[in-house]
Amino acid sequence: MYKLIKTQGHAKRGEFYTHHGIIQTPVFMKVATCGAIKGALSALDLEKIKCQVVLCNTYHLHLRPGDELINEFGGIHKFINWHGPILTDSGGFQVLSLAKMRRIKEEGVYFSSHIDGRKIFMGPEESVQIQFNLGSTIAMALDECPPYPCDKTYMQNSVERTVRWLKRCKNKISQLNSEHNKKQLLFGINQGGTFADIRIENAKIISDLDLDGYAIGGLAVGETHQQMYETIEKVIDFLPQNKPTYLMGVGTPENILECVERGVDFFDCVLPARNGRHAHVYTNFGKLNLNNAKYIKDENPIDSKCECETCKNFSRSYIHHLFKAREMLAMRLCVLHNLYFFNNMTQEIRNALDNGNFIEYKRKKLEDFKNQD
Amino acid sequence: MYKLIKTQGHAKRGEFYTHHGIIQTPVFMKVATCGAIKGALSALDLEKIKCQVVLCNTYHLHLRPGDELINEFGGIHKFINWHGPILTDSGGFQVLSLAKMRRIKEEGVYFSSHIDGRKIFMGPEESVQIQFNLGSTIAMALDECPPYPCDKTYMQNSVERTVRWLKRCKNKISQLNSEHNKKQLLFGINQGGTFADIRIENAKIISDLDLDGYAIGGLAVGETHQQMYETIEKVIDFLPQNKPTYLMGVGTPENILECVERGVDFFDCVLPARNGRHAHVYTNFGKLNLNNAKYIKDENPIDSKCECETCKNFSRSYIHHLFKAREMLAMRLCVLHNLYFFNNMTQEIRNALDNGNFIEYKRKKLEDFKNQD
Repeated sequence: MYKLIKTQGHAKRGEFYTHHGIIQTPVFMKVATCGAIKGALSALDLEKIKCQVVLCNTYHLHLRPGDELINEFGGIHKFINWHGPILTDSGGFQVLSLAKMRRIKEEGVYFSSHIDGRKIFMGPEESVQIQFNLGSTIAMALDECPPYPCDKTYMQNSVERTVRWLKRCKNKISQLNSEHNKKQLLFGINQGGTFADIRIENAKIISDLDLDGYAIGGLAVGETHQQMYETIEKVIDFLPQNKPTYLMGVGTPENILECVERGVDFFDCVLPARNGRHAHVYTNFGKLNLNNAKYIKDENPIDSKCECETCKNFSRSYIHHLFKAREMLAMRLCVLHNLYFFNNMTQEIRNALDNGNFIEYKRKKLEDFKNQD
Repeated sequence: MYKLIKTQGHAKRGEFYTHHGIIQTPVFMKVATCGAIKGALSALDLEKIKCQVVLCNTYHLHLRPGDELINEFGGIHKFINWHGPILTDSGGFQVLSLAKMRRIKEEGVYFSSHIDGRKIFMGPEESVQIQFNLGSTIAMALDECPPYPCDKTYMQNSVERTVRWLKRCKNKISQLNSEHNKKQLLFGINQGGTFADIRIENAKIISDLDLDGYAIGGLAVGETHQQMYETIEKVIDFLPQNKPTYLMGVGTPENILECVERGVDFFDCVLPARNGRHAHVYTNFGKLNLNNAKYIKDENPIDSKCECETCKNFSRSYIHHLFKAREMLAMRLCVLHNLYFFNNMTQEIRNALDNGNFIEYKRKKLEDFKNQD
């Protein structure tokens, strides 16, 4: 159940009640593709950095170690030792970006595993069954995420098929929940690329299905930030305000601020962990590249205002050295910092919304970010 | 100052007082080659696993980031954020094992950096100066570690030169300590390979120098375990009992038990961290290889009697999966466990010595270790 606590313009401050805990929104979810955050972070670290929701990848976990194994184990929460909310994606995006020899049919997607070439079929029922086996808090409906740019006729047909898949997903999860006395939640996904008319029509249709939440998918796939923001502005009023709104795969701190203002309250992105592994760290005064020789003697922490474990204990000089010496610890320290930075920023956003000063907060923050290394 | 608390046969239970804290012996030191434990462990993790002493490599830190940089920074303790005792090796072993184009002369060693080919000279005074710049608690004297096997005449000449180097190291550290009002400690190194007569003669000479501690070097370089044990047995009575006895680069849990019995009380080895990175983990009932398919569904921790963070939170199945998925977290969890295992075992050894039942403890432990995966 989603409780809308406060709004400022389109911006939403909410609470989402799940059987694994309450999610305070806006929220940035942490991507644990195979059940671990890249950069040697465990679930224990996620608690330390105030993570609220972990996102796991259905495609990856289905291939390895297998959702049936995780089910036997007692579910994904027990397997990775994270007892807060977990969202699983549908696997659709990875099938299209990673798998080989894929064919999309009305019944679902045929593809070959990127690990061993094994032939696999995944339809809406299969995707939901896998996510049910994993036992995530929130399952995502199987969708096609069309490429950018994309021909309008293809897009129209794709979105219509995704709606038919969504209805099949909804039936399947209702059946499984009822059979097993479970309460796994299901989010539907709005598609349509940058075609506002297709997006709006689709948003109206899926809103009527009364799902637990709604995602905006198929953005941040190649269009400009401006096109992404405009697309959200056009479609947002046609998605239910009293449900979570999840912008998939986004994004930078700037993107998050802009999209919160436009009504989004769930985010996820691999960017902070990936950047951290490459010595790119976020600060309240712009990004730094710790590989830069100018940090060789810099005794300051990454960000002297930051309260994360990395900043309270280690210098830029030490981390620069660790990258040069190819020590894994370098990546871990930067990923810890970056994820904390994103969590801390969404905490600040929630505070600003609570206090009714989000717009001033956002303007100040974007100004501070303008420094780049 | 070393305080011998208790003995059982040759086995020593001691306390070594340093200006960075008291070291309870027997002790297993943790190897942080470049100022970090491989496997993404930071100084904060070392506190959690009850580490007492960190060992850093003079050769590596001299080349990168440079001992002068670390000196400007306020020393190695501040640089890596570990405030307990730190021992630095002399660099001699790495010069001989890693560096290219090395030539050993009376004045010291000429070599080329393995990183960039830069030509470097390191004599006893240079090695001590570097370690003084780093600001370690305990410096090691520069020695030559001859290869195994080694011609007796070469060995005799090498050991005699190492003694001359040791005297120069002692003079240099006295001068530096006095000039800077510091109390950096210096350990000398007994050499002689498996030639008992050379070792004994050397032990007598260096014991007269009244150093802060004595290492047995040049073992675990290719000779059998039995040869190593016998060599220690022969030389140990000629090294001062009222000083720390450090067996360099050793070893397995079995080695440690055997060598404690023979009078050693300081150990260091890269083995537990290296093995951990390859899924080989130590338990109270032998070693396991977590890459083995039989662990795919194993919900048990690595060792159900172990109190480490890994064992209290994660299953063999999860760690097996993380190795298959090539997640860095796999290595971190296994290194954490292995280092904890070594620390915990030396704690048990100290308790057994305190209680006067070390021999029974050792027999039971070796029996338990016989299981192998």
